[in-house]
Amino acid sequence: MFKRLCFIGVGLIGSSMARAARQHQLAETIIAVGQTECLPNLQMAKQIEVIDEYYTDIKQAVENVDCIVIATPVGAVESIFTQLKEYWRDDVIYTDVCSTKGSVIAAAEKVFSGIPDNFVPTHPIAGAESSGAAAGRADLFLEKRLVVTPLPNTRRDALQKITQFWQHIGAFVSTMSVEHHDKVLAATSHLPHVLAFAMVDLLGRKDEQEEIFKYAAGGFKDFSRIASSDPTMWLDICLANKAQILPLIQQLQIELNQIENMLEQEQKQQIFDLFSYARDARQRFLDQLL
Amino acid sequence: MFKRLCFIGVGLIGSSMARAARQHQLAETIIAVGQTECLPNLQMAKQIEVIDEYYTDIKQAVENVDCIVIATPVGAVESIFTQLKEYWRDDVIYTDVCSTKGSVIAAAEKVFSGIPDNFVPTHPIAGAESSGAAAGRADLFLEKRLVVTPLPNTRRDALQKITQFWQHIGAFVSTMSVEHHDKVLAATSHLPHVLAFAMVDLLGRKDEQEEIFKYAAGGFKDFSRIASSDPTMWLDICLANKAQILPLIQQLQIELNQIENMLEQEQKQQIFDLFSYARDARQRFLDQLL
Repeated sequence: MFKRLCFIGVGLIGSSMARAARQHQLAETIIAVGQTECLPNLQMAKQIEVIDEYYTDIKQAVENVDCIVIATPVGAVESIFTQLKEYWRDDVIYTDVCSTKGSVIAAAEKVFSGIPDNFVPTHPIAGAESSGAAAGRADLFLEKRLVVTPLPNTRRDALQKITQFWQHIGAFVSTMSVEHHDKVLAATSHLPHVLAFAMVDLLGRKDEQEEIFKYAAGGFKDFSRIASSDPTMWLDICLANKAQILPLIQQLQIELNQIENMLEQEQKQQIFDLFSYARDARQRFLDQLL
Repeated sequence: MFKRLCFIGVGLIGSSMARAARQHQLAETIIAVGQTECLPNLQMAKQIEVIDEYYTDIKQAVENVDCIVIATPVGAVESIFTQLKEYWRDDVIYTDVCSTKGSVIAAAEKVFSGIPDNFVPTHPIAGAESSGAAAGRADLFLEKRLVVTPLPNTRRDALQKITQFWQHIGAFVSTMSVEHHDKVLAATSHLPHVLAFAMVDLLGRKDEQEEIFKYAAGGFKDFSRIASSDPTMWLDICLANKAQILPLIQQLQIELNQIENMLEQEQKQQIFDLFSYARDARQRFLDQLL
C-alpha cells in the first residue's frame, strides 16, 4: 500500500499502527521521526523492529515518503504542521490520529490558511493507559472503531487509501463531522478521564491515602484505570477540546448536586430510579459493544 | 467448622460464601432463608447445590444452626435483627457482611439495646457488578481482604471462629474500628460508585446517547463497570453511610471546580501537575494491590 510510511511520533498509537502495517504488509519501509529527547524511544522502536529507520530531523525523515502519520500529543500538531509546511507535497497523503479533531483542523487552518486537500483527519477509538513504543500492539485496532472526519475538500483518493489502511488492520471505519466527533468523544472519553484524574488526585492527597488504597478492590481498580493515562497527552486533549468538556463538567456538577440533595433528604425512590436508570443505560452500552 | 450454617440472603456474597464453605468443607449443612418474593432465587440456589435447604420462615430456618450470616442489602438489617431477636441464642455465632458497619451497629443497638457479644460485624472487600445466587463464585474472596470490626464486648471465640472461616476460604483478615472502616470505604468504594452512576445517568439521558455509547471504548467500559451494580444494594449503602459519603461528594465538587478554572484559564502546568499526581497516586495503589 505504501512504499515509505512515516510516523511523526511512535508512542502507543504510532507504534501500534507501525506493527499492524508491518504485520499486514502495508508498507515496505517504516520510518519514524521524533525530537532529540525522544531518541531513546526511537532507538528502542528500531531495536524491536517496529520501525526500519528513524530521524530527529523532519526534512530527512519525510524524503521520498508517500504517507505521513501525525501521532504526537495533540498539542504538538500546530508545530508539526509548521515544520511540515516547507516540505508539503501533493503526492503524499497526510493523516493524524489525535483524539480531538477541531483543534487539529484549527491548527491546519492557521498554518496553511485552509485545510490541505491531501490531509485526512482520523481518530482510532482504541488505546490503553500505557505509553511509549514498547507498549504498542499490532492488534490494538482490531475490531475497534476508527472515526474519519473528512472535510468538504478532502481528496477522495487520500480518504480512500487511509480508510483502506484502517480496514486492512481490522478497524471499523465510521465517518463523522469534526464538531460531532468532538462532542461525542468529550462525553465518552474526555469527561471520564477528567473524573478519574480528579477522584484519584482527591483521594491520593488524603492523610489516610495509603489505607484507602490498601482497601480498594476491583471496582476501584477498573474505575481508576484511566487515571494512569499519560498526563501530557491528556493535558493536550483537555485544552484542545475544552469547549466541549467544560459544559459536561458543569452538567456533572449539577447531577452531583442533585444526588447530594437526594441523599441529604433520603429520597429513596429518586436515588433508586437514578441508579437503575444508570444501570440500564450501561446495559444499552454493553449491548452494542463491539 | 459448622454443623448448620445459615445464610439470610443468598445473593452474590452469600452464595459465594456458601460455595466456598462447601468447597472447604466448613459446614455440614448449608441453609438459606429469604422472603417469599425471593423464592425463585432460593430454589435456584438449591437446584445448583449451593445450599441444602431453604426457608421463607426465619423461625424454621434458624432452628439448630450454629452460625447465621446476614447477607442482605444493608437496609434490611434492622428488620432482620428484629426478626432474629425472638430466637437469638447464646450458642450461635451471628455475623454480617454488609458494606457499611456503622449502620449495622446502630441497628443492633436499636433492636437489642446494646450489641450482642456473639455478633461479629465483617465486610469482605470483594464483589462484582452481577447479583443473585447464580452469580456467586467459590473463589470470590480468594486473596481478597476481609475487614472485621469487632466491638469491645465481642466474644473472643466468636471473633476467632469467624476469622478462621474467612482465612480458610482464602481471605486476608484485617481489623478496623467501625468508624474508620466506614470512612475508608466511603472513599475507596462508595464515592466511585456514586460517580459512576452519576456519569452514566448523565450520558444516558442525552439525545445522542446511542451514539455516545457506540463510540465508547475500553476506558469507558472499565470506568462505568460499577454503574452496573445492584441499585437496591447501593441505595442502601449510600443512605447507610451518607455521613461519610456527602463530605466526599462535596470535596470532589471543589476539585472539579478547580479543574474547571484551570481549564478555563488554560493553566497548563497546574493541570499537568494534577494529572501527574493522580497517575502517581494510582501507581501507589497498584504497587500495594494484592
